[in-house]
Amino acid sequence: MSQPNMVIGMHLGNGYGSQPGAWRMPWVDPRNYASFDAKVRHAQAAERGKLHFVFLPDGPGHVGDIENEAPHFNLDVMLTLAAVARGTGRIGLVATGSTTFNEPYNLARQFKALDIMSHGRAGWNAVTSSGEDVAANYGRRLPSSPERYGRAHEAIQLVQALWGSWGQDAWVHDQASGQFAKGKRIAPVNLGGKFVASRGPLYIPPSEQGQPVIFHAGGSPNALELAGRFASVVIGVAFTIDDARAQRAAFRDAAARAGRHPDEIKFVAGLMTTIAGDRRSALDRRIALTERTFPDRLAYLQQMLGVRLDPARLDQPLSPDQLAAARPSPRDPRSAHALNIAREGWSLRDILAHGVIDYHPVIVGPAVEAADHMQEWFESGAVDGFWVSPDIYDDGIDAFVDGVIPILQERGLFHEDYAGSTLRDHLGVPAQYGVDHRLR
Amino acid sequence: MSQPNMVIGMHLGNGYGSQPGAWRMPWVDPRNYASFDAKVRHAQAAERGKLHFVFLPDGPGHVGDIENEAPHFNLDVMLTLAAVARGTGRIGLVATGSTTFNEPYNLARQFKALDIMSHGRAGWNAVTSSGEDVAANYGRRLPSSPERYGRAHEAIQLVQALWGSWGQDAWVHDQASGQFAKGKRIAPVNLGGKFVASRGPLYIPPSEQGQPVIFHAGGSPNALELAGRFASVVIGVAFTIDDARAQRAAFRDAAARAGRHPDEIKFVAGLMTTIAGDRRSALDRRIALTERTFPDRLAYLQQMLGVRLDPARLDQPLSPDQLAAARPSPRDPRSAHALNIAREGWSLRDILAHGVIDYHPVIVGPAVEAADHMQEWFESGAVDGFWVSPDIYDDGIDAFVDGVIPILQERGLFHEDYAGSTLRDHLGVPAQYGVDHRLR
Ligand SMILES: Cc1cc2nc3c(=O)[nH]c(=O)nc-3n(C[C@H](O)[C@H](O)[C@H](O)COP(=O)(O)O)c2cc1C
Ligand SMILES: Cc1cc2nc3c(=O)[nH]c(=O)nc-3n(C[C@H](O)[C@H](O)[C@H](O)COP(=O)(O)O)c2cc1C
Repeated sequence: MSQPNMVIGMHLGNGYGSQPGAWRMPWVDPRNYASFDAKVRHAQAAERGKLHFVFLPDGPGHVGDIENEAPHFNLDVMLTLAAVARGTGRIGLVATGSTTFNEPYNLARQFKALDIMSHGRAGWNAVTSSGEDVAANYGRRLPSSPERYGRAHEAIQLVQALWGSWGQDAWVHDQASGQFAKGKRIAPVNLGGKFVASRGPLYIPPSEQGQPVIFHAGGSPNALELAGRFASVVIGVAFTIDDARAQRAAFRDAAARAGRHPDEIKFVAGLMTTIAGDRRSALDRRIALTERTFPDRLAYLQQMLGVRLDPARLDQPLSPDQLAAARPSPRDPRSAHALNIAREGWSLRDILAHGVIDYHPVIVGPAVEAADHMQEWFESGAVDGFWVSPDIYDDGIDAFVDGVIPILQERGLFHEDYAGSTLRDHLGVPAQYGVDHRLR
Repeated sequence: MSQPNMVIGMHLGNGYGSQPGAWRMPWVDPRNYASFDAKVRHAQAAERGKLHFVFLPDGPGHVGDIENEAPHFNLDVMLTLAAVARGTGRIGLVATGSTTFNEPYNLARQFKALDIMSHGRAGWNAVTSSGEDVAANYGRRLPSSPERYGRAHEAIQLVQALWGSWGQDAWVHDQASGQFAKGKRIAPVNLGGKFVASRGPLYIPPSEQGQPVIFHAGGSPNALELAGRFASVVIGVAFTIDDARAQRAAFRDAAARAGRHPDEIKFVAGLMTTIAGDRRSALDRRIALTERTFPDRLAYLQQMLGVRLDPARLDQPLSPDQLAAARPSPRDPRSAHALNIAREGWSLRDILAHGVIDYHPVIVGPAVEAADHMQEWFESGAVDGFWVSPDIYDDGIDAFVDGVIPILQERGLFHEDYAGSTLRDHLGVPAQYGVDHRLR
């Protein structure tokens, strides 16, 4: 393959951005949580940058501190993607759909309908869901991991079987002869397992990419096996190159064990961005966004570094004594990076503003720093790409698209344009219709 | 109320129209089944006529003769309505959602998200579903009627409770103070019944109409009680004024028994239309659309009229002897009308082309005949309005909108414009947020 092939997806969450303070910024409309227009605009911005896909995580009912922060997820991921499908033309559309709290027939139907609607751009992030709060919305307790993953294995295969139940060449719609479809090529699947069952068929013809692409997100041993069998893309989390490389290798091994080529599974790691003209402006932007969290985070930073830090001295860097005493906590993979930043002499406030305590590695600085990070991880075989969470969607996607993407393109790392018209084309995912008969 | 108040909805099915031959007509794109553009266009046509709502029935997996006919339903009703929401501005958006085969939390979430997306135009046709073929898609047998309706009563209340769980004034989004929402006004519902349960809350603020409007479709005693308690609109079937009047009265009584005002429930009956400049052209259009069904229908017409009819003599009217011998079958409410048409001297082919054997009363003729039918039924207290199924969406909606609507408006029966911006406004449905606390 001569096309550069770094995969980049864009996190599309609650309408504001990945930072809890995003909704409060004066140039952000604080009603974006309920604005489908805003989400379409954000996806259009990502499409302008030729990003492979938008990714909408979902954990129905999972919400933090609603008094001060927006919920993390979309009102409804499928309806959001339907709006985005109508407002974009090329970018992939990926949403989380829980195998635990949905009927396979309903999942199969909505994701394939989205695939038709978007002309072959849908992806299903098949996860088992976690959290008793989510389960409680369905009047249940969270099933055990073996039960959740047992059901997930069945559900994904059943969904794929339903996708394949309308034969690829079955739709004739010949007005002259009056044959609408080859009835025999649209057949029930009649699958029943321990956890789920369905008769089918599903009355939806193939899309331009056949059927949606399967994603997975999760890191447990059970998740590894599930992804190895079914996923084309893994939405991952890793704080260091070594960790990412090990995870990627584990997923590739899992794919091989399932009888697939390791290249058929792509590991994309999270990256959070605050892009500005220089490091100082980026840090200031992030301080405005996250300062409210600094008291809590400072307390946690103490544990990461193993030294006492004075909340009254946020303007000061660590003292030489503190730096000498500091030891990165082995229990948090972000600690070494935090210590490196501290050693550069930044104030406590600026250390926190670097995002050393966040869900993913964070770039706070000029675009070239994001590009350098991505290149290093990509070229060292740690990842196949990234899913990017900008701090504020309203201008952070543009900053990434206008700043980082051209550098990656110049360096020959990222495509100049979409390879084709479908998500499968963009990602280079092999054709598949129905279940994968090679699976061991 | 001085506004004329006949309610009119438009059936939006598979992309072709209510007649099985619609997909074969040369001016119809035979791929409309998979075209979201087509559905948006059809809804826009209905909106041009100021129709109150589009109605998308659904029975997941219910399909007839796929070799020759298109499936009756949309690929997915919620995604279709999402596309329609983005492509229209005023018309109501109503879809069937099964209380038997969906989790209440998922129903609550998707319908309220649609309500937000459409700025207050969503309606939920809450039905219990019928048919073993549908149940089989969920790996189950169809539950008994008491079980289905027991679950439905719980599910609708749970959905409404979830809708109300984000307090109407809870969303503050005050950038200055940093208060996103009044946390105490967004509270779990913690409802659990015999069939369904959920904790909540549902993190969706009120729409412009508060929450979606409840519809129901069905005629059994159980359906009557369910609609009486919860429905604002009943999607009905009636072949005669007397039958419609009796049904409407029964639903109004059921509403009163539940503690509501009878005017809070509106009964709308089905009407199928083939509109053309004159009766002859309309009959010819319908012959082209449905001739394939005539052999079967002729056999059935014999039973309706109690006389033998010769398939080789489709061009002939009934003989005087046949007419003298004919007796309308008491087992089919359409028989008397069929006999009236036969007595007018039409050929067998033309009798069938009048649609005497169809799911609803059928108008085949000039627009004024549809207007007359609607006026007569409406003014005799048989209905509050109609849901109309045009023969072919691509031009049949326009024929209705350009032909029938102006006559109804001239006669002061139908509004000149939408009363407001929400479905609740259009229908005059009283405000409600959360459950209805008046219910007995
Ligand atoms: C990057 C990433 C994204 C995830 N996104 C979701 C999501 O959108 N919805 C969800 O329910 N769980 C999501 N998960 C959680 C996993 O599905 C999984 O539940 C979690 O990792 C716990 O692992 P286990 O279920 O294998 O025990 C995500 C996990 C990771 C690592
Ligand atoms: C006009 C009309 C429209 C209906 N639309 C639907 C529908 O869209 N989906 C569905 O599952 N059932 C639909 N039904 C069926 C009813 O929900 C109900 O299942 C049926 O009348 C059988 O009655 P029972 O379930 O009360 O025994 C419809 C019924 C009528 C009369």
